[in-house]
Amino acid sequence: MSLEEFKELDAATLPVGKLISIIARGHNIYLNHNLKDLDINATQLHLLFEISCQSNINQENIASRCNINKGAVARSIKKLEEKELIVREIDSENRRQNKVSLTDKGQETLNESINIFNKWEMEIFSENDLIERETLQKVLKEIAIKTMELNQGDNR
Amino acid sequence: MSLEEFKELDAATLPVGKLISIIARGHNIYLNHNLKDLDINATQLHLLFEISCQSNINQENIASRCNINKGAVARSIKKLEEKELIVREIDSENRRQNKVSLTDKGQETLNESINIFNKWEMEIFSENDLIERETLQKVLKEIAIKTMELNQGDNR
Repeated sequence: MSLEEFKELDAATLPVGKLISIIARGHNIYLNHNLKDLDINATQLHLLFEISCQSNINQENIASRCNINKGAVARSIKKLEEKELIVREIDSENRRQNKVSLTDKGQETLNESINIFNKWEMEIFSENDLIERETLQKVLKEIAIKTMELNQGDNR
Repeated sequence: MSLEEFKELDAATLPVGKLISIIARGHNIYLNHNLKDLDINATQLHLLFEISCQSNINQENIASRCNINKGAVARSIKKLEEKELIVREIDSENRRQNKVSLTDKGQETLNESINIFNKWEMEIFSENDLIERETLQKVLKEIAIKTMELNQGDNR
């Protein structure tokens, strides 16, 4: 659908799930475009973010947390290591596993990436007087929790 | 991140873009699970939806509208045709193109899929008193438009 066609649609006819998926795709395009200068892609950023949340995380946990398959995680981890954004060391408690943590350069890249997230948020709220940012965050968090619960339960 | 860990986080610290992508992924899992009975997947539903919006659309337009590559569209179209959900005929104005439209069975499947979207929406709004559904639809539509504009413009 073109942007002009989309603008003409009555919001009340658009399923929330459809709108969310349109935004997610657009946000991903925005991220990948703006991450070019930082020389990483959206998947690699996602991994940096997870690694920063739990230092010394092992590679298997990253895969399960990010919902990405182990092969893809291994490839991205290798790329991030080559770029010197992370370091790997053997987990002394489980020698078949690698523990992964951010380097200073990795932390810097992550901080700059967060600026890109913030820039997008500033843009989308710049002309939006329908809702406060904090309210939207609360609403979306509730929806995310409910969706995860539906996917875990028997009622999905 | 586990559901329990996620619940503990302060919503104000979660980037809107991150929340959107978590919901989009969850919604997709929900859709694929519930579409099993209809014997289609989320991508095929997406195509049915686009085909229903513009009858006699040609295959190339579907690819560009859905932002899916032509090979993937061709494979999904073939699957939908085998399931007798769509019909293809040669475009008399451009004999190298196929025009695609829904069969009655395809329309029925689409209607039932829309029930799945509605069921998810009912679930996410069932305990949500922070926002009206209509307000959320307007807000998300604005964000979708702004994001598409950012991706088109020079300021992306």
